[in-house]
Amino acid sequence: MSPSVNPAAQSGLDAQTYSFLGPSGTFTEAALLQVPGAEQATRVPAGSVLTALNMVESGEVDAAMVPIENSVEGGVTATLDAISVAHQLHILREELVPISFVLAAASPLTPAQIRSVSTHTHGWAQVRRWAESAIPGAEFVPASSTAAAARGLLEETPVADAAVCSPLVAEQLGLHVIQHGIEDVTGAVTRFVLVSRPGIIPAMTGADKTTIMIPLPQDRAGALMELLEHFATRGVNLCRIESRPTGDGLGQYYFSIDLEGHIDEARVSDALAGIHRIAPGIRFLGSYPRADRKPQQPAAEVSDEAFTAAAAWISSLETRVREPGAGPAPRRSRGVGAG
Amino acid sequence: MSPSVNPAAQSGLDAQTYSFLGPSGTFTEAALLQVPGAEQATRVPAGSVLTALNMVESGEVDAAMVPIENSVEGGVTATLDAISVAHQLHILREELVPISFVLAAASPLTPAQIRSVSTHTHGWAQVRRWAESAIPGAEFVPASSTAAAARGLLEETPVADAAVCSPLVAEQLGLHVIQHGIEDVTGAVTRFVLVSRPGIIPAMTGADKTTIMIPLPQDRAGALMELLEHFATRGVNLCRIESRPTGDGLGQYYFSIDLEGHIDEARVSDALAGIHRIAPGIRFLGSYPRADRKPQQPAAEVSDEAFTAAAAWISSLETRVREPGAGPAPRRSRGVGAG
Amino acid sequence: MSPSVNPAAQSGLDAQTYSFLGPSGTFTEAALLQVPGAEQATRVPAGSVLTALNMVESGEVDAAMVPIENSVEGGVTATLDAISVAHQLHILREELVPISFVLAAASPLTPAQIRSVSTHTHGWAQVRRWAESAIPGAEFVPASSTAAAARGLLEETPVADAAVCSPLVAEQLGLHVIQHGIEDVTGAVTRFVLVSRPGIIPAMTGADKTTIMIPLPQDRAGALMELLEHFATRGVNLCRIESRPTGDGLGQYYFSIDLEGHIDEARVSDALAGIHRIAPGIRFLGSYPRADRKPQQPAAEVSDEAFTAAAAWISSLETRVREPGAGPAPRRSRGVGAG
Amino acid sequence: MSPSVNPAAQSGLDAQTYSFLGPSGTFTEAALLQVPGAEQATRVPAGSVLTALNMVESGEVDAAMVPIENSVEGGVTATLDAISVAHQLHILREELVPISFVLAAASPLTPAQIRSVSTHTHGWAQVRRWAESAIPGAEFVPASSTAAAARGLLEETPVADAAVCSPLVAEQLGLHVIQHGIEDVTGAVTRFVLVSRPGIIPAMTGADKTTIMIPLPQDRAGALMELLEHFATRGVNLCRIESRPTGDGLGQYYFSIDLEGHIDEARVSDALAGIHRIAPGIRFLGSYPRADRKPQQPAAEVSDEAFTAAAAWISSLETRVREPGAGPAPRRSRGVGAG
Repeated sequence: MSPSVNPAAQSGLDAQTYSFLGPSGTFTEAALLQVPGAEQATRVPAGSVLTALNMVESGEVDAAMVPIENSVEGGVTATLDAISVAHQLHILREELVPISFVLAAASPLTPAQIRSVSTHTHGWAQVRRWAESAIPGAEFVPASSTAAAARGLLEETPVADAAVCSPLVAEQLGLHVIQHGIEDVTGAVTRFVLVSRPGIIPAMTGADKTTIMIPLPQDRAGALMELLEHFATRGVNLCRIESRPTGDGLGQYYFSIDLEGHIDEARVSDALAGIHRIAPGIRFLGSYPRADRKPQQPAAEVSDEAFTAAAAWISSLETRVREPGAGPAPRRSRGVGAG
Repeated sequence: MSPSVNPAAQSGLDAQTYSFLGPSGTFTEAALLQVPGAEQATRVPAGSVLTALNMVESGEVDAAMVPIENSVEGGVTATLDAISVAHQLHILREELVPISFVLAAASPLTPAQIRSVSTHTHGWAQVRRWAESAIPGAEFVPASSTAAAARGLLEETPVADAAVCSPLVAEQLGLHVIQHGIEDVTGAVTRFVLVSRPGIIPAMTGADKTTIMIPLPQDRAGALMELLEHFATRGVNLCRIESRPTGDGLGQYYFSIDLEGHIDEARVSDALAGIHRIAPGIRFLGSYPRADRKPQQPAAEVSDEAFTAAAAWISSLETRVREPGAGPAPRRSRGVGAG
Repeated sequence: MSPSVNPAAQSGLDAQTYSFLGPSGTFTEAALLQVPGAEQATRVPAGSVLTALNMVESGEVDAAMVPIENSVEGGVTATLDAISVAHQLHILREELVPISFVLAAASPLTPAQIRSVSTHTHGWAQVRRWAESAIPGAEFVPASSTAAAARGLLEETPVADAAVCSPLVAEQLGLHVIQHGIEDVTGAVTRFVLVSRPGIIPAMTGADKTTIMIPLPQDRAGALMELLEHFATRGVNLCRIESRPTGDGLGQYYFSIDLEGHIDEARVSDALAGIHRIAPGIRFLGSYPRADRKPQQPAAEVSDEAFTAAAAWISSLETRVREPGAGPAPRRSRGVGAG
Repeated sequence: MSPSVNPAAQSGLDAQTYSFLGPSGTFTEAALLQVPGAEQATRVPAGSVLTALNMVESGEVDAAMVPIENSVEGGVTATLDAISVAHQLHILREELVPISFVLAAASPLTPAQIRSVSTHTHGWAQVRRWAESAIPGAEFVPASSTAAAARGLLEETPVADAAVCSPLVAEQLGLHVIQHGIEDVTGAVTRFVLVSRPGIIPAMTGADKTTIMIPLPQDRAGALMELLEHFATRGVNLCRIESRPTGDGLGQYYFSIDLEGHIDEARVSDALAGIHRIAPGIRFLGSYPRADRKPQQPAAEVSDEAFTAAAAWISSLETRVREPGAGPAPRRSRGVGAG
């Protein structure tokens, strides 16, 4: 890569401005800071996931970072529904962030001195066992995010003696970290995605994911099996599947699916074309590099070469079809990948 | 159709010469005479199915009519194996012939006068109950075909007093028909196919069949399921399926399959392309009009329109894939039906 | 039902004490109050879903009501993981509660008088559009639940001028309701489940659900298909499916599934027995009446009668198997439903 | 095995009398002579496969040996239809016989001296290449079987100078063998089955086959897939599958299937029970030792142990289902393998 390339371009777009689930210092901002170029770009905190997404849709910002799984603070299910159903957005990138909490205060207190502690209710749930043992008498003061709790320590009338928050916000605000790694379960990781208006799709890297949303016309027996057969016959593995009510009526569902591979691979495009026939409302939400960089290893029978060979064989047959007495068969343009 | 058109062209080729499983007057010749133009063409009887097929392969004749199912005289299984494995031939057309036998003699005998009767062993099996009741004392003299039995009546030393044969040969030889419709089971029909060297494939009529042969690399569990999923996901119905040993080793099989539809229909070509990936040795043996003219009624989701719409959607996505900073995506030519 | 029956028994157990996601007045308590007998029973609010479940496991209470889907306040994903993985609990019952919010205050204020409003962050997200239009200048004060926000109005130093909360808590606390139905999306419903230690399974009603958790040994292609074939071959419909990381290692997944039907129906028990063979770690989390009372209408081919007829046929064959010269076949006790 | 055991019992019945597709000396009799005890038993030649089967059904003989595949002389398709549809017979045993022909004469002729040769038309087809090279001028005289051709050499007026027949009949009649191994394709093997009236089913050997016939109510898309899923979910491999018209109407089919395994194995009985639900007209035609003695190696997940463990788990759940206030659950007797 030449030194003159804008590092933001590595994310698949030359973003200058980002929104994220705020306020400053959340785990979501930590995820955003992992995106090349984001540190130099404008980062706008949003009050909710929906607000962050709306800012992208309206064009206020180029892209938004939002939590998608196991979030400490965000409404994850809402994120998925928002991206899938309400908004016409694409995923450009995913980021994994280790979830680790610190106990921080405005001044160097000892645990015994802490009578009240502020954080988001979900964050509090993740440090409860530690808190019961380390600061058993401290009162819990709910905050709208872990970062808001941290910021509340610096107000004229502090909301609490200490806050449970991300290492990032403690550093940003210059707080005193009383204890690191206070989470009850270590090793937890949360997944975030960077979304933008539909535009360029990042090129295949060989270790990619594709996210789709498939509405099923009705809750009929076997509909899911039928969907999955389209993946199975192309050797496409799923990373995640969730059935979700569409919200617009009883008995209406959609499936939210992450699959291994990129739209530019024949096995993926052929499977999606197959599903498009039975569920024309299918929505493509993005092909993007996997955060874990785990490379695909498709079987030979679903390699691009196998697809090309099969198409060549079919073509060789189709050119020989004609009416008795008719001239050479016309070229046809039907089918997947027709140039 | 204009009067100047060669009627043979309706069969998909301008055949001037045909071989068929002989001798003259077999049910196979009756099938051949159903082909437009065959009555005026040269018809060469062959001593066996394999000989008839060899005559096509060597170029001695343009096409051959051979029995494929429930035959009175031919080795049907052998036919299938011969077309599928040994020969590189295509099926152009299928014909159904009602199987009805007559008792015929050189002179107007009564049943009571008949002490011996000649026919093919398989023909004899199909009139046994009638014979036990109508000509109980008559001795059975085996012949190499029902037509040979009929012809044997006219030899210097007749092989028997009467023959069980097709109405066609009785008429051709001017024999006296003692009784019509003597078959024990009425309504039986035999299927014949017209085969030629690979060339033009008859155009789709909307009521077509396609015959294929699929070798499976090994006798592994689930291999047949995997094959059938390729048909199921494209809504392709099967008319016939048979597993057959390939003859070149233990544990090696092929499947002989007739399916509904024509190679020029997207659901068929897409299914065959899918199977080509897992069984590249798949052989296409022809797409041709169904003898019963029963029209296909594919579901909307597997119509050519559904395939075209799906391909257009995929194309609209693929054109947006590119490296950061790269120019417009190049057109690609991968995939089924690429023009 | 006779008048002397303990109404709690209708829930499948004679619960005297319940925990629920508190504090008093949450939507979760509203769900609990829908359980017959719960109004007269002891109801203990818990600070989190995990606390509520721990109280059941330790025997402090008989059962717990927790949110399972689309919750306003609870960590829904956490609930599922807690019931499926961490705890050995069963689901006895599900309840649907319409999600409707009121704006309430301690005294009869007008909207224009409200400068601050308290509620849970998720609740706030669901009334944002209304708030921007009706009380545009009001400051948002986060609370740990909508009920806590309501209660905060009655403190010596009220946390805010008004609260967004459930109709239930407003009534319980005698608050003044300024406006009903302020939610941005009407018609939303949240699902709650009543869980207990494993014991009696409620009898089949004909409109039941069964919840299971299926760990897959590895992230192998086709594993999900294989699972679903077991449901498909028994005509068992799924209501919900979610893949979830098990948390104990990369590449390890489990599927959380709600299916239509009761363990006491042959098609369900046969499907689960089939899955037990390929995933012996399958966990049964309960068969219980559907909250929507929608009756099952299984096809004839998967009715209990069809299973009984099939078993009788197999039995009639098996009794005839024996070694040459051996006596009558011994009775065997293998198989599903062996009495 | 003790020396006093009747060797016929090894075939699964104490047969004293057998019919077979005659006349004496056919390949079918060679197959019969492979059955322990058959050499000492009464063997009755029948004029056709149907006659041989009729003799079993009427009780004239205990069992019949008939060709089932690739036969030199018999109507193989007819055999299958006869056993499956017309007759209520069971398969007890299968035999493989190498197909090798001899050229035999009544006196020690040289090939050059042979001007006419008799055999069955199918046998003739299998030695044509040899005949064209070794006895190019010889005339073909059709016979109703290869054995009849051999016998015809000994008539007062011999039908031909030589016969193409089985080694068995040449030996039985004391003919002079001019040349051994004259078949054009070496290594061919034909499969024969021993059938009887339904009675005892031979015990499992660990290397068994089961033959079934499954009528499909209509030619509906996906019906075959549905059938095969029942085998796939129990890990049951197929050895052979053929679709056949039932003969009683257009569009009516049955599938003739040989599968690996014995009705006394849980994976087989469970699969057949599953199919019985969707096709109650399924016919069981026998479980019997494989002629090739190739042992089954079912995966652990479809072993009898896995079925037993799954059934025990389901039972442990079902015993806990009951109405509120009701006593212990009654024992039920539903399901496969109920003792």
